[in-house]
Amino acid sequence: MRPQHKSDLTRKRILDAARKLFNENGTSHVSTNLIARELGISPGNLYYHYRNKEEIIRELYLECSSYQDSTWNKDIGAEGNLMRMRSNLVEATRLSWKYRFVEREILALTEIDPELKSIYLENYRQRLALSVRLGEQLDSIGALRYPVSSVVCKDVMIAVWLVFQSWITFLDVTGNPEDSVQVQRGADIVLAILKPYLSAKGLKILGRSSSFLSSDKDMMLGDSLRKLSQNVRT
Amino acid sequence: MRPQHKSDLTRKRILDAARKLFNENGTSHVSTNLIARELGISPGNLYYHYRNKEEIIRELYLECSSYQDSTWNKDIGAEGNLMRMRSNLVEATRLSWKYRFVEREILALTEIDPELKSIYLENYRQRLALSVRLGEQLDSIGALRYPVSSVVCKDVMIAVWLVFQSWITFLDVTGNPEDSVQVQRGADIVLAILKPYLSAKGLKILGRSSSFLSSDKDMMLGDSLRKLSQNVRT
Repeated sequence: MRPQHKSDLTRKRILDAARKLFNENGTSHVSTNLIARELGISPGNLYYHYRNKEEIIRELYLECSSYQDSTWNKDIGAEGNLMRMRSNLVEATRLSWKYRFVEREILALTEIDPELKSIYLENYRQRLALSVRLGEQLDSIGALRYPVSSVVCKDVMIAVWLVFQSWITFLDVTGNPEDSVQVQRGADIVLAILKPYLSAKGLKILGRSSSFLSSDKDMMLGDSLRKLSQNVRT
Repeated sequence: MRPQHKSDLTRKRILDAARKLFNENGTSHVSTNLIARELGISPGNLYYHYRNKEEIIRELYLECSSYQDSTWNKDIGAEGNLMRMRSNLVEATRLSWKYRFVEREILALTEIDPELKSIYLENYRQRLALSVRLGEQLDSIGALRYPVSSVVCKDVMIAVWLVFQSWITFLDVTGNPEDSVQVQRGADIVLAILKPYLSAKGLKILGRSSSFLSSDKDMMLGDSLRKLSQNVRT
């Protein structure tokens, strides 16, 4: 579709600059002219790539969703997904921070852009279906305490969806969203929803995931939370 | 403090009118003049009771929190609270709808009003402490599957808090927040978080709550959800 390498690069630069400005100032305070100025390109050059701000916002939303999907939809079966759940959740909180204007504004943005709203709803429907499939797969390998109906699967998924959707904004008020340790706490909140559904086998598979953690920082976070949890009440 | 009955009545009328206008138009599109006009009183009369819009918003937030608290903090012990949990949650979703501008805007509002922010944070801290106490009480009567650390209690409470905070806004996009059946689904989402922590005894106490439901509508909702849940997968 867009064979020109240079053109793709400019699009990528526009998206990155827009994301940064949206995160810092909120979308309503950022014009396409400001984005062009930030990049040192002419407004005409920007319009060649994106007709308007809404198009940039939609593409950033799709980019964010596609990254979020890639942490979950890998073809590694239920056991593989469960094993990577903790590190996937930590990665998801990092993405929430990277695209924090999305988390902060998505519902208001869908109100003013029907096209974004239908993309959002389609994404939501796919997630619902995915969560029901994952629930069935987890059940089939004995990772759940009891069979979970698709209604409960969806309820749990909606709870997780709402936590992710409001986590960064919640930190804006109650904490410091620039502190990556606090951002990653979102993973623990989600695990507090998911863990009690797991059987002993499921918990064991989940526990193994620590070996999948990619950095020392993750290990330290896991350790410090474990210690905190042990100290408070045993 | 304010002994005049008539004055209290005017304050109540101002709050009700403001809540209605804020819900329908968003706080940023409603001026104190508009509220006065809606009530057929002079702006001067309104200023006698409330110095500015921020004061009205703060009082409505306190009113909403105090109603929310009254569904939970009753002096009826852990078993009583658990028994009434479902109907309390349904009541809480009704309050979310009644004060929906709060749910929609609270985080943005705390950003522009430091006084509201400290009220919000204090409320949040009280809820955290309350949830830890409730967790300990539920544990002491054998209603939990296993002792739950105060860290987990807080994580669960934050999850519930975030679900309530974003539920109505979520319905704005994915459903119809004017449909009370959909609004009350928020109670099921929260129960999907809480139920798996309960022991057989805890679930039995929770189950008894159906006899506490106040209206036929609630009974019908409970029935229809139960049937739905049985039909989908058994």
